[in-house]
Amino acid sequence: MAHIANKCIVFIFFSLLMVQSFSTFAQSKKLDEKKPCKRLVLYYHDILYNGTNAANATSAAITNHTKLGNFEHGMLVVFDDPMTKDNHLLSPSVARAQGFYFYDMKTEYNAWFSYTLIFNSSEYKGTLNIMGADMMGEETRDLSVVGGTGDFFMTRGIVTLRTDVAQGLYYFRLEMDIKLYECP
Amino acid sequence: MAHIANKCIVFIFFSLLMVQSFSTFAQSKKLDEKKPCKRLVLYYHDILYNGTNAANATSAAITNHTKLGNFEHGMLVVFDDPMTKDNHLLSPSVARAQGFYFYDMKTEYNAWFSYTLIFNSSEYKGTLNIMGADMMGEETRDLSVVGGTGDFFMTRGIVTLRTDVAQGLYYFRLEMDIKLYECP
Amino acid sequence: MAHIANKCIVFIFFSLLMVQSFSTFAQSKKLDEKKPCKRLVLYYHDILYNGTNAANATSAAITNHTKLGNFEHGMLVVFDDPMTKDNHLLSPSVARAQGFYFYDMKTEYNAWFSYTLIFNSSEYKGTLNIMGADMMGEETRDLSVVGGTGDFFMTRGIVTLRTDVAQGLYYFRLEMDIKLYECP
Repeated sequence: MAHIANKCIVFIFFSLLMVQSFSTFAQSKKLDEKKPCKRLVLYYHDILYNGTNAANATSAAITNHTKLGNFEHGMLVVFDDPMTKDNHLLSPSVARAQGFYFYDMKTEYNAWFSYTLIFNSSEYKGTLNIMGADMMGEETRDLSVVGGTGDFFMTRGIVTLRTDVAQGLYYFRLEMDIKLYECP
Repeated sequence: MAHIANKCIVFIFFSLLMVQSFSTFAQSKKLDEKKPCKRLVLYYHDILYNGTNAANATSAAITNHTKLGNFEHGMLVVFDDPMTKDNHLLSPSVARAQGFYFYDMKTEYNAWFSYTLIFNSSEYKGTLNIMGADMMGEETRDLSVVGGTGDFFMTRGIVTLRTDVAQGLYYFRLEMDIKLYECP
Repeated sequence: MAHIANKCIVFIFFSLLMVQSFSTFAQSKKLDEKKPCKRLVLYYHDILYNGTNAANATSAAITNHTKLGNFEHGMLVVFDDPMTKDNHLLSPSVARAQGFYFYDMKTEYNAWFSYTLIFNSSEYKGTLNIMGADMMGEETRDLSVVGGTGDFFMTRGIVTLRTDVAQGLYYFRLEMDIKLYECP
């Protein structure tokens, strides 16, 4: 009988260990940068208004650059830009990116973004709210997904930017690799 | 004896199942959009400075709109606006909303907000930090509560905006339905 | 035998209670404002461009103040400012603060910040994204750390600002007491 009671106790310990480890897994799962619970790669197309391209432009500077350096410091751009699944400007837009960026350095080109991705398709309805520094000199740079709504209710994550094409000041394209770690 | 040991094992399984489901509930509780841990409905009053109303105005445009479309694209407004419990402008202010919005579309009115709600009353002391797109064409639109301080320490949630009154460019009132899902 | 079975059941209850309390602890641990999982105290130095100090300046106003009051309402400053470990401007910079602030009140000085702290040293590589109201009349004021990347992957927390020195409009120094409550 003592033998069976011992087996019972051993089993309890084993079970508790399992529960514990499941629960630990649930916590650490959030923290594994390589295992997002959802991932989307989209392309952001910014066509800046230059005085003559109002038909195509989807963004415009609302302030002139300051005199601090020669890298457009202080130029602030408000955008409502299309997001596509591949890197073709004319591909169907699967989301809009609405927000702003500005250039902030006097010694090199460097930007700062805050924006919302708005999804309104059969695939997703909802928004992702994003902010962070765009250190343009780096091959890739990470911004934070700080919140979401709708299909992305209360999500958080990382957006990795990569410059895909930059044609002067008036058109550039960013790959946005969106990795979510807290999913609805 | 085997009978009792079996009962013991059955009981253990049942218990583990309960723990498991409690723990699942604890996780999913965060994610039930219908069950915020705290909810506040407040009204936001924005009186824009028009050159003559400095005594009443609580916000002012800091940039002119751009020439992209006819919907004030690029007009950026900095505000320090009162928040009231009902929709009367002259009701006691229970919080201040400090931040900015700008219009961002060329084909319709559409805005983007980032702001802090500052509470300093006997009821609440602390702040809520909020950002997101205000798709003015929609009946309601969701922004993210991305953080909080004081009585709202580390909170997150959703703010649902509804236009209550819009009198031209110089006065508008928004209902802000604040739902928090992570509470101190 | 019944005695042993009872002990077994008592033990199970005790164990479940422990699991429950561990799990409760794991939840509430996040919420103890006095126990950040990481803490950094850094100093922020803002030297505003005044037309003649381009060599030293690290920020510049991109909009003029509005006519709403006499406290620079609407002046928006874009910065790329050094962060140091002690309060000496010329100490080695351990991070950059890139972002913006603006003044938002008509009756007193009051500001609103949104920025990224960029770490690129042997100690830390990564970013912290921060936003919130800077109620300059208060001795200390709390902003939200709404996200992080790299060594600060998915972090959240609070930054407590304290004005260390304010020399007119063109130089001020803030102590930033950064407390993180969700750590990688």
